[in-house]
Amino acid sequence: MLSKTQNKYIRSLTQQKFRKEYNVFIAEGDKIAREWLNSNASIQIVVALEGWLEENRLLVLKHAEVTVCEVSEQELESISGLQTANQVLLVINMPFPPALLPKNEWCIALDSIQDPGNMGTIIRIADWFGIKHLICSMNCVDVYNPKVIQAAMGSHLRVQVHSTDLVTFIADTKMPLLAATLDGEDIHKLPKMKYGVLIIGNESKGISDDILQIATYKVTIPRKGGAESLNAAVSTGILCAILIS
Amino acid sequence: MLSKTQNKYIRSLTQQKFRKEYNVFIAEGDKIAREWLNSNASIQIVVALEGWLEENRLLVLKHAEVTVCEVSEQELESISGLQTANQVLLVINMPFPPALLPKNEWCIALDSIQDPGNMGTIIRIADWFGIKHLICSMNCVDVYNPKVIQAAMGSHLRVQVHSTDLVTFIADTKMPLLAATLDGEDIHKLPKMKYGVLIIGNESKGISDDILQIATYKVTIPRKGGAESLNAAVSTGILCAILIS
Repeated sequence: MLSKTQNKYIRSLTQQKFRKEYNVFIAEGDKIAREWLNSNASIQIVVALEGWLEENRLLVLKHAEVTVCEVSEQELESISGLQTANQVLLVINMPFPPALLPKNEWCIALDSIQDPGNMGTIIRIADWFGIKHLICSMNCVDVYNPKVIQAAMGSHLRVQVHSTDLVTFIADTKMPLLAATLDGEDIHKLPKMKYGVLIIGNESKGISDDILQIATYKVTIPRKGGAESLNAAVSTGILCAILIS
Repeated sequence: MLSKTQNKYIRSLTQQKFRKEYNVFIAEGDKIAREWLNSNASIQIVVALEGWLEENRLLVLKHAEVTVCEVSEQELESISGLQTANQVLLVINMPFPPALLPKNEWCIALDSIQDPGNMGTIIRIADWFGIKHLICSMNCVDVYNPKVIQAAMGSHLRVQVHSTDLVTFIADTKMPLLAATLDGEDIHKLPKMKYGVLIIGNESKGISDDILQIATYKVTIPRKGGAESLNAAVSTGILCAILIS
């Protein structure tokens, strides 16, 4: 059972200010919870149904410091951010922010990505393509937003997310800068590169001018039909697949 | 102002059974509404704020049969399915289902896609790559679900969606069948084709066995990192970009 205080604490974590204050975030659902429990992440609380706890006892026991709360379906529902609560919810201590910025390896830079689904999907794409660093401008959506955690499907564990002044990073790095735009060079015709920074812009405004001005290449996925644009995460996936093939 | 009956009618359209009963669907927000009004679609009702109606008077007048309701922000909020209502909502008559299945051109087949965001994004991807036909199994999410309309950003206007028995279509078509799986041939190494059916499976279960068995090729986006899979819409985008380049 959850105490009133625990219930209130967990519900507060849907808000970024409380995640920052307590330095924790939430991951929900059987599959994602197992991925986090199987990692070296520092888990603070496991809230789960009886059946789930029985099935995953050994996995939970790996984490000596964890508080385990067995709850009813109604209790889980009362703290869940999902449309239908799914057996288990974790409160996880945030890892230390990564110290070193990437050099001479592929990375993705995000300029003001606002949609949590896009952010999570992009973290998952980075993970699929073995990209270890994601550089986010300060005004991107919080990468510990529950919807980002959901969409990333555990890929936070393998992708380091830097939240930093993007213009400074872009200006300082020696790597080629590839800005995804609607009026650049055909991505299929770009010379092969061993590494670089793929820059993806805001969902409606694209990449800001100060970044565009210092980009090495503007790159575009050739359009054959009528859609005005592609979704930011889909574009990221396509560009990664072509650049890192 | 909206009558009580109109208010109730519009709110009922978030449910598929009422969309089917009345043969209409909803599109919301300034950008999407203008795209639909600019088309030959048959618009039944325009519900909008005063300022929006003034700015878009000519666009609305193009549609002789339309009912126009000027509403307050509160009224719009009361019928909106968006987190924040955005100036305008349309009730649109469903077009006739497309009659002819595609032959000798690229098309996408969806086997049990459940997430409305994925469905809408895939319609937008098809539109970007000039793919005119999407073949959906009968158990896919309704393509007129408001979240699908939102994510497709008007691409319904240019992509014909067939809701049909997918196994029959797959078995009958003479085109090459490319099934997206996690254990197929590297998509980059596939021989170039002029046309074919790209088959995308359910978000968690993938493509059903009866369809996999008759696929010409199983194709895969090579994985370099740790993620177990890619999002269905992202995979669709990547495969289209490589197949149709």
